Amino acid sequence: MAQKPSIPKGTRDFGPQEMARRNYIFNTIREVYALYGFQQIETPAMENLSTLMGKYGEEGDKLLFKILNSGDFLRGIGEDDLRTGATGHLAALLCEKGLRYDLTVPFARYVVQHRDELALPFRRYQIQPVWRADRPQKGRYREFYQCDADVVGSDSLLNEVELMQIVDTVFSRFGIRVCIKINDRKVLTGIAEMIGAADKIVDITVAIDKLDKIGLDNVNAELREDGLSESQIEALQPIVTLSGTNSEKLSVMRQVLAQSQTGLRGLEELQFVLSRYKGAAQLEFDLTLARGLNYYTGCIFEVKAMDVEIGSITGGGRYDNLTGIFGMPGISGVGISFGADRIYDVLNQLDLYPQEVTTATQLLFVNFGDAETDYCLPILAQARAAGIRAEVYPDAVKVKKQMQYANAKGIPFVAMAGETEMQQGKITLKDMATGEQACIDASELIDRLRR
Amino acid sequence: MAQKPSIPKGTRDFGPQEMARRNYIFNTIREVYALYGFQQIETPAMENLSTLMGKYGEEGDKLLFKILNSGDFLRGIGEDDLRTGATGHLAALLCEKGLRYDLTVPFARYVVQHRDELALPFRRYQIQPVWRADRPQKGRYREFYQCDADVVGSDSLLNEVELMQIVDTVFSRFGIRVCIKINDRKVLTGIAEMIGAADKIVDITVAIDKLDKIGLDNVNAELREDGLSESQIEALQPIVTLSGTNSEKLSVMRQVLAQSQTGLRGLEELQFVLSRYKGAAQLEFDLTLARGLNYYTGCIFEVKAMDVEIGSITGGGRYDNLTGIFGMPGISGVGISFGADRIYDVLNQLDLYPQEVTTATQLLFVNFGDAETDYCLPILAQARAAGIRAEVYPDAVKVKKQMQYANAKGIPFVAMAGETEMQQGKITLKDMATGEQACIDASELIDRLRR
Repeated sequence: MAQKPSIPKGTRDFGPQEMARRNYIFNTIREVYALYGFQQIETPAMENLSTLMGKYGEEGDKLLFKILNSGDFLRGIGEDDLRTGATGHLAALLCEKGLRYDLTVPFARYVVQHRDELALPFRRYQIQPVWRADRPQKGRYREFYQCDADVVGSDSLLNEVELMQIVDTVFSRFGIRVCIKINDRKVLTGIAEMIGAADKIVDITVAIDKLDKIGLDNVNAELREDGLSESQIEALQPIVTLSGTNSEKLSVMRQVLAQSQTGLRGLEELQFVLSRYKGAAQLEFDLTLARGLNYYTGCIFEVKAMDVEIGSITGGGRYDNLTGIFGMPGISGVGISFGADRIYDVLNQLDLYPQEVTTATQLLFVNFGDAETDYCLPILAQARAAGIRAEVYPDAVKVKKQMQYANAKGIPFVAMAGETEMQQGKITLKDMATGEQACIDASELIDRLRR
Repeated sequence: MAQKPSIPKGTRDFGPQEMARRNYIFNTIREVYALYGFQQIETPAMENLSTLMGKYGEEGDKLLFKILNSGDFLRGIGEDDLRTGATGHLAALLCEKGLRYDLTVPFARYVVQHRDELALPFRRYQIQPVWRADRPQKGRYREFYQCDADVVGSDSLLNEVELMQIVDTVFSRFGIRVCIKINDRKVLTGIAEMIGAADKIVDITVAIDKLDKIGLDNVNAELREDGLSESQIEALQPIVTLSGTNSEKLSVMRQVLAQSQTGLRGLEELQFVLSRYKGAAQLEFDLTLARGLNYYTGCIFEVKAMDVEIGSITGGGRYDNLTGIFGMPGISGVGISFGADRIYDVLNQLDLYPQEVTTATQLLFVNFGDAETDYCLPILAQARAAGIRAEVYPDAVKVKKQMQYANAKGIPFVAMAGETEMQQGKITLKDMATGEQACIDASELIDRLRR
């Protein structure tokens, strides 16, 4: 036999079992988004490269999958272009289109392109794959799904509250215990203003984040290494050692940031959200949360699973000018993104899938031959009409093989009709888990399966 | 404002309304597939070009979207390769991957790659987009979804019967009246054998298909133009004028094809399927159905909408050696593909969407300010806990604007709480269709919305 075919590295096939689990994740998120009034959109896999380039930094540009122009892609390309060896320049001539890198930029493009049709504020969600030419490694893929929801066209902090509630609803449906960490970019700006070190704010949050692990002295040593002066470190002490309830932290920070209008505004925003959130998941003001993406301007948040060691499984925040890149300034938005692949890992690790998620076919009719199958077909039709997922084994092969098939597919019930059953107008139902059998009529079979 | 951004030609954005309708189509097909014991898989958007090339004919190869290798894509490409100007040769050097062109070849690749994990017969369905660098035109897109189901690893004609039942179930759920045309490639082979003109079988079916429109004399004239002799045309007369019930047609054909073993086998296959199919949709033996794809070897079928002028909206058939191209011969399969875009057009034209499909948010809470909203938030939470899709308008803008938003989004009910309601512990519910208002308590509001 020839060599087995394969798929590009960093991509995946999803078989029936994985798909059932993934659908459970996507459907749960989808249902909750809809429950909160979000509407789904989809955008094309391919965008014009002019839409994508320059939106993800220089590194991001390199990670875009580019699509070779169709037809005579060399037309109009001179010898010089080919010879220079500048791949960036040549790629731009060879390719007009690229695969989307995330759902955020296509969404911004969508809002600008369709602005005349949209009723703002616009609550949209989008669940689609994205592609990145990243070096594949464990947990990092070249094709993966994003599950984003955003509200654009509203400055109201009620939107942030709603997103926190969405997090709580989704993870309580999954049965995953989570903690939501929340912060505000304006608070971080306030801290930077206060100590006069705007460029060091990320280093500072990284150092402070280690307090539990390395202790106060080592944190301060690290701040010193980061180039902060003794007076700056001194000024940071209430922040480094910040603890207590959300109210206590807010209260300390109000004093620390008393001189920073921006900082105080950030604290007010947090106060608004924290006081209105009602959920089972803990919502915690965490000053060390910074989030990398520099388009965030207000509240930011991340979700951690309590019972599994894994990075953030959901995150998001407020941005003030997403559509500005496409010439439509002044539209504020706030968004959230569920990390489906990590949620999948958490659900697997904690074995939290409801049983019905992974049961595909509920009932298999064994095939003893044409006559017996003809007897079964109307019962099969009745079962399906009653909503029971059912099938008939298509070939009259050995019963053992048919039973193996039922087991391999995880089918919990098997129906059999031989001469006796046909004479009595009955059917034998076998419970594959217990091995129990009962000779019953069709309507009782359907009643039992429905339960 | 800058020029509006756009998307590549032949691709589409799907807004909330279109998505709601498309989801209704995909979910209906998905549910029916699952009801019949089919399990979902997904394959990557990108396949190795070695998997795709040569599977769709020369024309197909040209219509593949190819992905530029990432990194230094010129490495290893000599000046000669660049200068020759043979785009096919150069494309193969520049690109290792391409976007999938259909779901059939990736499925064949999947079966071969995962053969050790699969319990045969394998019933899989797959609903994913495909990409073709076709010239875009009305109704033809460069990105579109396919909704395929196939059974591989079983020769049984019960699989064909099941696919017919799936067609009937899907379209009866949609409320679309359809006719299923069925034929068998073996019957066509038999006819070709009988008159000794294997290469003319497509011309013959095309000519016969025109009988109703142009009459017998003109059909025979066309057969003459196609190069058939008078004796061949004479032999074809019982076929050209074939009419009556399926049984009558089968009976005539059994005499016509009495000398062709292959032809008789095809008629037996049709007899098996026709006699076991039970459904509301008419299933009609149609000798003029040929279907273009030459990998079909047995039963073939197409579905026509009765009340809309449009091409085939679903089709499929039996193939005997799909996985042979990947070195795994002897696996028979039979498949079906629903044309989602055409079904969308039919549903639109006949206006057959259930109302609940297109209602997103069911209830909007008007925002009169922080105090009023704080009063509403617990009721909003209760409503959602009861499964009601609800939202609060995030900003305290003029009521008129909020009502316009409700209308634009098609929200049927609006809830309002001002000072009076807050004092009485009530809420005013407004029916946006009738304009009726009622001041009720939260539990009654939820009861009414649930109905």
